[in-house]
Amino acid sequence: MPVTDLTLQQYLETRGRLVDEALDRSLPPESQPPEIIHRAMRYCVFAGGKRLRPMLVLAGSETCGGNPTQALPVACAVELIHTYSLIHDDLPAMDNSDMRHGRPACHVAFGDAIAVLAGDALHALAFALIASAADAVGAERTLLVSRLIAESIGTDGMVGGQVLDLLGEEGRTFPAGRAPSRIPRADMVREIHLRKTGRLIRASVLSGAMLAGADDRTVTALGRYGERVGVAFQIVDDILDVIGEESAVGKRLGSDAARSKLTYPIAFGIERSRQIAAALTGEGEAAIADLGPRGRILRELAEYLLARER
Amino acid sequence: MPVTDLTLQQYLETRGRLVDEALDRSLPPESQPPEIIHRAMRYCVFAGGKRLRPMLVLAGSETCGGNPTQALPVACAVELIHTYSLIHDDLPAMDNSDMRHGRPACHVAFGDAIAVLAGDALHALAFALIASAADAVGAERTLLVSRLIAESIGTDGMVGGQVLDLLGEEGRTFPAGRAPSRIPRADMVREIHLRKTGRLIRASVLSGAMLAGADDRTVTALGRYGERVGVAFQIVDDILDVIGEESAVGKRLGSDAARSKLTYPIAFGIERSRQIAAALTGEGEAAIADLGPRGRILRELAEYLLARER
Repeated sequence: MPVTDLTLQQYLETRGRLVDEALDRSLPPESQPPEIIHRAMRYCVFAGGKRLRPMLVLAGSETCGGNPTQALPVACAVELIHTYSLIHDDLPAMDNSDMRHGRPACHVAFGDAIAVLAGDALHALAFALIASAADAVGAERTLLVSRLIAESIGTDGMVGGQVLDLLGEEGRTFPAGRAPSRIPRADMVREIHLRKTGRLIRASVLSGAMLAGADDRTVTALGRYGERVGVAFQIVDDILDVIGEESAVGKRLGSDAARSKLTYPIAFGIERSRQIAAALTGEGEAAIADLGPRGRILRELAEYLLARER
Repeated sequence: MPVTDLTLQQYLETRGRLVDEALDRSLPPESQPPEIIHRAMRYCVFAGGKRLRPMLVLAGSETCGGNPTQALPVACAVELIHTYSLIHDDLPAMDNSDMRHGRPACHVAFGDAIAVLAGDALHALAFALIASAADAVGAERTLLVSRLIAESIGTDGMVGGQVLDLLGEEGRTFPAGRAPSRIPRADMVREIHLRKTGRLIRASVLSGAMLAGADDRTVTALGRYGERVGVAFQIVDDILDVIGEESAVGKRLGSDAARSKLTYPIAFGIERSRQIAAALTGEGEAAIADLGPRGRILRELAEYLLARER
């Protein structure tokens, strides 16, 4: 069924199934030695995540006239990268979170060593999967996507955001010391979210568009959409950490405050944070207004992410 | 100077300088925020490593008629991957090694959290660098190399070897339990080394050859060479851990035995391990005998690695 005939809910269900099936084909079976690492990888990938990033790859591709199948390897890859980052973030040395998606975190279930390695293995598998997209769309486009994603998850992106997040925690010490931060808190929390979440979400939408061979103008518009929606998504996450239902969100709530994390609610309060998330979502939708009916799924997705309760 | 006119020592010195300069250009400066992660990455990359893997990329390329410059981004990438794996291996949850290259390990100098993230950042930067090789050799060859390297460092390669290494340790426990190993110790140690070291070293030589557009026959020969030399290299490492000079090797020796690691000297004894390493080196050299004078640097490098004392 062409994407324009689907409701958002139908889109998320049908594409979610495609992604889950592709992830299942892409991950080594649990029975393959060394079993423990493959069990750990599957435990984390099939833990009930929302598959937001893969949805954005597919929607980015379909919005630009691509078919979902050709974008599936990259859709899986960004989900593996997201999963690896959660595993490493949850480690005792990092955020020390023992619950994720309503069950024990990877390091609790498999031990810290296997958790480090499961993250590393998912990271590597992601780039093997990205390379396999060349079978459908050719080496040129695939390589641009591989580079974009790699650059989005380094110190200028996801990992850099996690470092800033740690530096923003009150009371955390580092053996090598740290430069005293002269950045105002509002700028700091914006930078954390932009890098930690915004860059990979932006890269997800853009990857879909690039795989489909979108023109420069559309790529620029989708890039702006992805960045705004990505930061809004993280702000909503922070708000849910304060006011959400623990059973719905699936991790211990109030953990940001317990660790003195610098979040939007801390820097701006709940009400102002809600307004900022809504404004960013509006900017994201406006960025793709020119796409007309083609952009409907992406616009509805932005609204849906803003209103979610988990 | 053409590669055929250089002694091995001249080759290692001139190419080592090229690699160090390229690594310096590729890593963000220490002054770039967030400074702590860039300091940690540089601390580990410029710690006095032997640059074996980048040398093999360049030698693989030059052996097949490529120039060293076009292979430099991939040469740097494999060194970054190797460095990331050492950082993660040294973590308290893994091998718990507090010294590396004669100074404090990354997690001792910067803390466990930054060490995890420095490894992750080097891993991501490696794939961004690989993608940049397309500027010189085109997207097709570059993408093949990206896929080969990604597949060589996952559970079928480097990470899988590290998992087997942990499983081979006596006394280590895992929350999720582990399948009792029915693999004989000799087979197990061979598999550990093949995956943990052999696969990335093989991928290094092969990457160089593929970047230079080598024919299938040459690629197969260099693949065999890389695998044999890679395993021999790790056996020599294990032997040096038992009988080397601590000041020369730069890490605490006897650590394998202290952790009841399964190594070649443990499984076969020192003398037999030496014979196996020499035999593998001979097989590696034989695999590229057909290359004639073109293969001289690779053959001499294999001999050099066998005879090294650090």
